[in-house]
Amino acid sequence: MKKTLQQLGEDALISRLIEKMPRDPDPLAGPGDDCAVVDQGKGRPLQLLKTDAMVERVHFLATAPPRKIGWKAIARVTSDFAAMGGIPDRFLVTIALPAHWPVAFVESIYRGMADCLKAFGGTLAGGETTRVPEGSAAMISIAATGLVDRNHLVLRSGGRPGDLILVTGKLGGSITGKHLTFTPRQAESRWLVQHAKPSAMMDLSDGLAKDLPRLAKASGCGFALDSNSIPKTRGCTLDQAIEDGEDFELLLTLSPKKWPQLSANWKAAFPKLSLTVIGQLTDASDKQIALTGGWDPFSK
Amino acid sequence: MKKTLQQLGEDALISRLIEKMPRDPDPLAGPGDDCAVVDQGKGRPLQLLKTDAMVERVHFLATAPPRKIGWKAIARVTSDFAAMGGIPDRFLVTIALPAHWPVAFVESIYRGMADCLKAFGGTLAGGETTRVPEGSAAMISIAATGLVDRNHLVLRSGGRPGDLILVTGKLGGSITGKHLTFTPRQAESRWLVQHAKPSAMMDLSDGLAKDLPRLAKASGCGFALDSNSIPKTRGCTLDQAIEDGEDFELLLTLSPKKWPQLSANWKAAFPKLSLTVIGQLTDASDKQIALTGGWDPFSK
Repeated sequence: MKKTLQQLGEDALISRLIEKMPRDPDPLAGPGDDCAVVDQGKGRPLQLLKTDAMVERVHFLATAPPRKIGWKAIARVTSDFAAMGGIPDRFLVTIALPAHWPVAFVESIYRGMADCLKAFGGTLAGGETTRVPEGSAAMISIAATGLVDRNHLVLRSGGRPGDLILVTGKLGGSITGKHLTFTPRQAESRWLVQHAKPSAMMDLSDGLAKDLPRLAKASGCGFALDSNSIPKTRGCTLDQAIEDGEDFELLLTLSPKKWPQLSANWKAAFPKLSLTVIGQLTDASDKQIALTGGWDPFSK
Repeated sequence: MKKTLQQLGEDALISRLIEKMPRDPDPLAGPGDDCAVVDQGKGRPLQLLKTDAMVERVHFLATAPPRKIGWKAIARVTSDFAAMGGIPDRFLVTIALPAHWPVAFVESIYRGMADCLKAFGGTLAGGETTRVPEGSAAMISIAATGLVDRNHLVLRSGGRPGDLILVTGKLGGSITGKHLTFTPRQAESRWLVQHAKPSAMMDLSDGLAKDLPRLAKASGCGFALDSNSIPKTRGCTLDQAIEDGEDFELLLTLSPKKWPQLSANWKAAFPKLSLTVIGQLTDASDKQIALTGGWDPFSK
């Protein structure tokens, strides 16, 4: 019997697909990081490239407020730029919809997109509208360019054994509402790269249980988590905090020497948002604390 | 009763959506041309931005050979870059699929994409795989950057009354097979911008009946077509040549003074591909020859 996408899983599928494709011989960051990074030449900022899709009944429901659906679509990409220390620039918006959907609903989705562009920057450069067959899920696919100063770029791969592991905000329970209204951590990312540049960073989209191993692997490290210190959204269990997806908080690593000063400065800069040490990167040879679960789009 | 997308139609929908969004105050080309054009600063080529989606049962069938589906997805975008005189650079590939699809089928799609990247240039910079609910149409969404020298850029809006209207190749009947295997007119576009730069250009994706009025309108012109001169694919009627979509030939306009020399040089450069004068741009106040039909994704 032929192997299906569900049996293979997302990460293994991506590995098998990208190995077939022509790629940059020496990319600053390619498939596998939050964004691709393109060198535009000396004296110019680096360009970030990102694409992100939202599928109805997988990432959102058509019963959700359309303006929030639009916000989320743009905010997810804005969060990916923040994850690398960058800012949004140009957006291409593709929306594929059943032909019977009301125009007013779609207009509200675009109003929500405009809300997020106005709040965090970026302009609409182009896009496409098309139809899906009746009964098919609608889909919103966002592609965007971002910009990051060369000395502000943070990859997933820069972590070193001994670095502290930190997260912004609280984790878990996003599905109860935050996933539609979250604030991309643009301001926090800008502040971090200017004040205490993280050694590695990403945004938490698939849950800590899936995303932290990705960061550690990219950095060639293992990790040890202090499960008591993981900041949980009110009402959430530890399992939910670790395994729920769509937190869109920043996950970062930092030399322990930088932490005392950073901790004090952070509280002054962002009094309403926590920044919490949850563990430490270790040697790759160390046994990792087993973290399973997290959100795979091909699993049920 | 609320107005639906089908009732409004694609062009009117796009106009209503983009007016809500923050845009560049003075773009070289924004929503409405084949690609958006971004000025990257003096001494550097312009950057082209393009996104294009293919939906199962709208743009392709899952019974089609998967390698050709992949070719088509990349070739459509490559054709859009050619339409502006540019070349492909970085690609972001998003694919949304039912979880029960065989891995081997998806791998073949990517092989087809790689075929086209190797033939016409461009590298994979990133992308995403995600799931659609069972029963939903699969979707492939391609976003890409391209490059064009500032003096080679051709927009839809540069046509002038009196310019000849030309098309490459033959029109109509793409649905019988060519739509999956077409050759993006990259070489022809490069040659044209270097030897006899068109005043306006686009690629024929929705059919001459829909696309020519778009070019004429963008140029502030009317047009007169000589229906006897329209090059028809063997076995196609005039209606099919005018109204079928997905020809992916170049539609261009040119000062009549340039035509005699160009005609001779073209035949030497591309002996197997016709370049045919099919009409002339006129004053906008002239009555346009009525062309209706063409392919609207929201109509049945």
